[in-house]
Amino acid sequence: MITRDSIVQAHERIKPYIHRTPVMTSQSIDDRVGGKVFLKCENFQNVGAFKARGAMNAVLSLREDERANGVATHSSGNHAQALARAAKVLGIPSYIVMPRNAPEIKRNGVIGYGGIITMCEPTLQSRETTLAEVVKNTNATEIHPFNNYDVMTGQATAAKELFEEVSDLDIVIAPVGGGGLLSGTAMAAKFFSPATKVFAGEPEGADDAYRSMKSGQRETSQANSIADGLLTSLGDKTFPIIQTSVADVITVSDAEIVDAMKLLWERVKIIVEPSGAVPLAAILKQREKFMGKKIGVILSGGNVDLQKALALISE
Amino acid sequence: MITRDSIVQAHERIKPYIHRTPVMTSQSIDDRVGGKVFLKCENFQNVGAFKARGAMNAVLSLREDERANGVATHSSGNHAQALARAAKVLGIPSYIVMPRNAPEIKRNGVIGYGGIITMCEPTLQSRETTLAEVVKNTNATEIHPFNNYDVMTGQATAAKELFEEVSDLDIVIAPVGGGGLLSGTAMAAKFFSPATKVFAGEPEGADDAYRSMKSGQRETSQANSIADGLLTSLGDKTFPIIQTSVADVITVSDAEIVDAMKLLWERVKIIVEPSGAVPLAAILKQREKFMGKKIGVILSGGNVDLQKALALISE
Repeated sequence: MITRDSIVQAHERIKPYIHRTPVMTSQSIDDRVGGKVFLKCENFQNVGAFKARGAMNAVLSLREDERANGVATHSSGNHAQALARAAKVLGIPSYIVMPRNAPEIKRNGVIGYGGIITMCEPTLQSRETTLAEVVKNTNATEIHPFNNYDVMTGQATAAKELFEEVSDLDIVIAPVGGGGLLSGTAMAAKFFSPATKVFAGEPEGADDAYRSMKSGQRETSQANSIADGLLTSLGDKTFPIIQTSVADVITVSDAEIVDAMKLLWERVKIIVEPSGAVPLAAILKQREKFMGKKIGVILSGGNVDLQKALALISE
Repeated sequence: MITRDSIVQAHERIKPYIHRTPVMTSQSIDDRVGGKVFLKCENFQNVGAFKARGAMNAVLSLREDERANGVATHSSGNHAQALARAAKVLGIPSYIVMPRNAPEIKRNGVIGYGGIITMCEPTLQSRETTLAEVVKNTNATEIHPFNNYDVMTGQATAAKELFEEVSDLDIVIAPVGGGGLLSGTAMAAKFFSPATKVFAGEPEGADDAYRSMKSGQRETSQANSIADGLLTSLGDKTFPIIQTSVADVITVSDAEIVDAMKLLWERVKIIVEPSGAVPLAAILKQREKFMGKKIGVILSGGNVDLQKALALISE
C-alpha cells in the first residue's frame, strides 16, 4: 500500500534520476480562471512526462536478482519510453511490447533508450499474450503502467513537489486515464496537504472514471479521444484510492481539450500534449468550482506530434 | 551611456513589473551541441518577450511631467505590446503607430493593454511621419524600440539575471536585429561576467550586423527572413557597443532557424518564436566554436502565430 513513508522514500530513491520540474504561473490563465493557478510542469520531465517517476521508482524497487533479468511492459505511449529509460539508467534490459501501428516516433524513442521491442497486433489480447510470452522467455519483471503500487507511489512525487513549493492549495487537479497519476496525487494530498481537495479531468470519450465514481464500481467505456494518454480504464489498485480520495471527476470534450492546449501553448508558451491539457479544460468548463481558489494543476506531459497538433489547432 | 550602476538601477526599477524568467537546461540540446547550454527563457517574460524589460525601464525613467503626456512608438511587433503594457502599469497613455498590414493578433495585443493605435501605410516613411504627427499632437515621449539607452539598459537585465544564476559561462549568445538586446547583453557581460565572450546570431536574409562588423561601419541589408523580430538594422547607439564588445556574428538560413525552433519545441517543450531560435541555430551551425563550452543563450521571445509556426515545422 501507499503510505507517507513510501512516498518520501520513493522521492529520495528517484531524485537523482528525475527533474524537479518547475511550477509556473500565468496572469492570462489566472484571468481566464478567476483564481490563482499553479502549473506543475511534468511536460519538462525526463521522457517528456510524469511517467519517468513511476517507472524509475518501480525499477529501483526491484531486488538485485530481479533487476538482472530486466523489465517488460506493453505500451505504445509514454510509459514505454519511461521504462526503457529507467532500465537504461540502471544498465538492465527492457522488453517493450508495442502494437504494429504504434507511431514511428514512439518506437524510435524506445529504441533510443535501448529498449528491445516486440511487435504485436493492435489488440489488448495480442498485447497481453505477447507480453506473457516475452516474460516467460526472459524472466523479466512486468511493470504495469499504472496498476502497480511502486508506479503509483512514484507518480505521487509530482504532487509532493508541488505541495512543497506552493502551500495552502485549495484544489489539486490531475488527468485520469488508468489512474496511476491521479491515485498518486490523491495519496500525496492526503499525506502532505490534507486540506487540499483532489479533482480529476477526464475526456468525455473515455469517461470510465466519471461513471465508476457514480456507480461505485469499475466501469468500462469507449476509448475515443484525442487525449491518447487517457484512453485506458481504471485498475483494481487505482480505483479504490480514487473512489475514496477524489472529490470530483469533470469530463471534457475534445474541442475543450484543444482550446485549453492552445491556451497553454499561446499564453504560457509551453508545449503540453492533449492529455496534459485536460485538467485546465476541466477548470475552464466548470469555472464556478474554481473561482477565487488556489489551484494546483498537474500538466502531465508534452509528447505530441507537432503535425497532428497543427491539424487540431487549425480546425 | 550604459554603466554597471545604470544596469543595476534599471534592474531594481523594473523588478516589480517583470518576471525573473527561469534558466532551463536540456540533455537533448547539450548532446546536440556537445557543450552545456543554459537557456534564459525570455519567451516566458511578460508580453512574451524581453522587450518588456527595456520598455518598462524607459517608461519608469521618464520625469513625472513627461510621464503625464504618455509615450509613443511605431512598431508592429513585441515592442508595441511591451510599451503599451508599461504605460498601462503606470496609468499613462500609449500611442502606437502600426502599419495597416500588421497582424490582427498584434493589434489586439496592443488594444488589450489600452494602447491607442494610429494606422499608417506599411513604409518606414509613413511610420515616421505618422509618429511625428502623433507626438506633435499629444506631446508624448517617443520610446524607440532599440536605439535608446534606457531601453538598451533594460534589455541588459536579462543577461544580468543569467550571470547571477550561472557562473563561469564561456559564451553568451543573443539574436541581433536593431541591436538593443545584443548591446545590452554585451554590456551586462562586460560588467558582470567579463570573461564571458559575447556572440550573436543573425538571419542571413537580414545580415546587416554581420556585414557592419566586417566593414567597420553601419551597413544596411535586405530584410527577408522568417525571423520577423530581427529585420531592422543596427542603430547609431547600438552599433558602437556591438562593434567593440561582440566577438562574432553568425548568420543562419531560415531552414536552420526552423530546425532550431523545432528542436526547442519538441525536446525542450517550450514555444520559441523564429527570432528566438536564431542563437541556437547559430550554435548548431558552427558547433566547433561551442563544443565543450558553457554557453548562455538568450531565448528572446515566444510570440508566434501557432498555425504559421506549425506549418513551418511540418514542412
